[in-house]
Amino acid sequence: MPKEPFTVVGTAFHTPERGQFEILENHLFGVDRQGRISDLLPPDHPDFEARKKAAAAAGQLVELADGQFLMPGLVDLHIHAPQWPQMGKALDVPLEVWLQKYTFPLEAKFADVEFAREVYGELVDGLLANGTTTALYFATVHGPATLALAEICREKGQRALVGKVVMDDPEQCPDYYRDPDAESAVQETRLFIEAVRAMDGGERPLVMPVITPRFIPSCTDAALEGLGALAREYGCHVQTHCSESDWEKDYVEARFGESDAASLDRFGLLTRNTILAHSNFIGEEDMDLIQERGAGVAHCPLSNLFFANAVFPLRKALDRHMHVGLGTDISGGYSPSLFDGCRHAISASKALHGGVHAGLAPAERGAPGEAITHREAFWLATAGGAEALDIPTGSFRPGHEFDALLIETKAAHSNIYLHRGDSLEDLFEKIVLNATRANIGMVWVSGRKVVG
Amino acid sequence: MPKEPFTVVGTAFHTPERGQFEILENHLFGVDRQGRISDLLPPDHPDFEARKKAAAAAGQLVELADGQFLMPGLVDLHIHAPQWPQMGKALDVPLEVWLQKYTFPLEAKFADVEFAREVYGELVDGLLANGTTTALYFATVHGPATLALAEICREKGQRALVGKVVMDDPEQCPDYYRDPDAESAVQETRLFIEAVRAMDGGERPLVMPVITPRFIPSCTDAALEGLGALAREYGCHVQTHCSESDWEKDYVEARFGESDAASLDRFGLLTRNTILAHSNFIGEEDMDLIQERGAGVAHCPLSNLFFANAVFPLRKALDRHMHVGLGTDISGGYSPSLFDGCRHAISASKALHGGVHAGLAPAERGAPGEAITHREAFWLATAGGAEALDIPTGSFRPGHEFDALLIETKAAHSNIYLHRGDSLEDLFEKIVLNATRANIGMVWVSGRKVVG
Ligand SMILES: [Zn+2]
Ligand SMILES: [Zn+2]
Repeated sequence: MPKEPFTVVGTAFHTPERGQFEILENHLFGVDRQGRISDLLPPDHPDFEARKKAAAAAGQLVELADGQFLMPGLVDLHIHAPQWPQMGKALDVPLEVWLQKYTFPLEAKFADVEFAREVYGELVDGLLANGTTTALYFATVHGPATLALAEICREKGQRALVGKVVMDDPEQCPDYYRDPDAESAVQETRLFIEAVRAMDGGERPLVMPVITPRFIPSCTDAALEGLGALAREYGCHVQTHCSESDWEKDYVEARFGESDAASLDRFGLLTRNTILAHSNFIGEEDMDLIQERGAGVAHCPLSNLFFANAVFPLRKALDRHMHVGLGTDISGGYSPSLFDGCRHAISASKALHGGVHAGLAPAERGAPGEAITHREAFWLATAGGAEALDIPTGSFRPGHEFDALLIETKAAHSNIYLHRGDSLEDLFEKIVLNATRANIGMVWVSGRKVVG
Repeated sequence: MPKEPFTVVGTAFHTPERGQFEILENHLFGVDRQGRISDLLPPDHPDFEARKKAAAAAGQLVELADGQFLMPGLVDLHIHAPQWPQMGKALDVPLEVWLQKYTFPLEAKFADVEFAREVYGELVDGLLANGTTTALYFATVHGPATLALAEICREKGQRALVGKVVMDDPEQCPDYYRDPDAESAVQETRLFIEAVRAMDGGERPLVMPVITPRFIPSCTDAALEGLGALAREYGCHVQTHCSESDWEKDYVEARFGESDAASLDRFGLLTRNTILAHSNFIGEEDMDLIQERGAGVAHCPLSNLFFANAVFPLRKALDRHMHVGLGTDISGGYSPSLFDGCRHAISASKALHGGVHAGLAPAERGAPGEAITHREAFWLATAGGAEALDIPTGSFRPGHEFDALLIETKAAHSNIYLHRGDSLEDLFEKIVLNATRANIGMVWVSGRKVVG
């Protein structure tokens, strides 16, 4: 849908490349009818004033006020949409209880499309309000409810990659909640892909289908083979859980005599468009393989601490220039905010590399390597995630989608306090470390204002 | 100052004892003229309706609406008041740079009382808005600025324990920021204690003075001796940093041939009214000693990760029924919110006991013991902190000060989502895990409404 072009003038922060932090001070951001960044002018550019005046005259100027800053929209690389109602709940029980008593019964309720519409509407509103402009969703096994999620994302304007979950192995999945068999699981996935592409099939689709085996333990060989064939046929995104826990790692090794990543690759499920959630227990060879295929990892620091007994070796992955971004992993993680995600990623990295156990000698306490910084965390939550998904967003560049947040440091309920002597770089750190939903004044996705 | 009594009717959550979580569903909370809880009636109490009606007729009824809940005010056991301007800043530099380039120069600016008044006013407003009804403050070496902090807390109605920092050792402290000598450091502390007691010296003072050696490495023996004598003479609270890092632990052992806790005890600084920040590296004997004296620990999970390379052995301390609460440790910690503090305490505890390093075998990965729950974290942030300080607050009991938060789960910008099937216990968990400042609708301290 063609829209009116508009222009934003103000100061933006972004991290366009890993390790690179850039302040675009008092720049002009042109947004075209397609919602893409058409150009980006510094204040000393000869056309700056004329462009700004013209936009103002046309009623198409958004001029940032004192205390307002532009930042790229946030990319959530791993979130279970149906678990939204139990976000922040039942996190004090063991994994088996969490799955069998809470999570599977809740996901099973999405057989009811009306229920799904209600929850998913609230979910997408909630995530947009938290600044999540792109989300890679696990839905449920149900085709109709999952299609409803795709529709709702499109209606509300959230960039979304949505997967109907496949889980067909009767030995690992409950009777009341699973695909009846491999064939129907694969067929439902095919229909889902076709339906989403029919709904939003342009060159720059806002909503895309994702092939989604829950994880190897919940799928039969036949289902994995069928999904691998679909991945080749449609070239669409793939997501699954990979080497999250000792149990999962051991299970796959016992079943296939190889690692999770190697098995996924053998089934044709490890591609440039694959996102592997967690991957805490991948080894060097797995990393080589994942990188060779161009797949990415969704690092979920909070749920790592709750359910994995280990943290993804993020620093190693960054040093290798692997594709990696952040996931909230709702509801294994309790927070819908990727600003929280940045903070938890820093904490988990500090814990891993700095050490936590005072009873050990200093040299034995942490893993080798440096903890990540707030700049790296923000890169993960924006450009890193976008790069992993291979979509043109996550930083301010001509040609990129204008997916952006207007941060109000002076909002009511703000915990961001600016003081004399703070540089813009300090300010960026204060935002990353203390921004909450209350600081998100406006949100745009492909130039469409979806919040504020 | 006598106030009007008032009555609150609604549902409250609290954790009056460690391990105990209580829902006071639709209860009536009577608050007397002194701001104390006079009584607490369940809805089936014979006087309930009459009391409620009488309060309504007198215009003294606060009736909680749908989505509103009462919780005890939060107790911050460790916070550096002058570091408020650098909250969320400079956390990507090494400790030495953080201290010498940022922290000491900032603290030195509090020689200017006007500057202090400006910062401290914003600080106390900010903490109250985040629900911190009691704070144990490190101020700076400056008497006048520290007295200004005490005055501001009293004016704004925050329960506060305030300490003029002592740091007099020229070998460890910068020339531009330290006490000139031990004698003047002790004398300034005496004057400060007298001044605070003159300002607020009743039976139930809102603001109390605290003897505050920064930590052993920054103090001469003479200063420590003098402060120990003051602690005996005035019987007031004491606070200091204890065994935070390998460096500190080793320094004290090299200087005194004993542990930090043992040294503090020898100087008369380990009492029932002492709060030790951090204490990450204390051993079993230290724990015995601290417990024998009745002293408490301020656990600061976030700054543990940033600056200590270890996490306080909280589970061990809880199992022993040691006094322990939570500190934000601003600005070694970046968040002013003790709800964040609860979350970080859970994360740190998960990291310590669940393990983080996938390269280790499962059995070697975590320290023995169970991670804390959200209930225990909330106890730390309320009743645990109050008990450590020996002040009657932190839970709803007749005779306790009415220090309370009205939580608005349905506030604008709320990330707390209630769903059909959520029990009140689930709701409590959702609040602890996702509440932000935006959810804090009102705050009372000793019955005085200080926010909302
Ligand atoms: Zn997941
Ligand atoms: Zn401190």
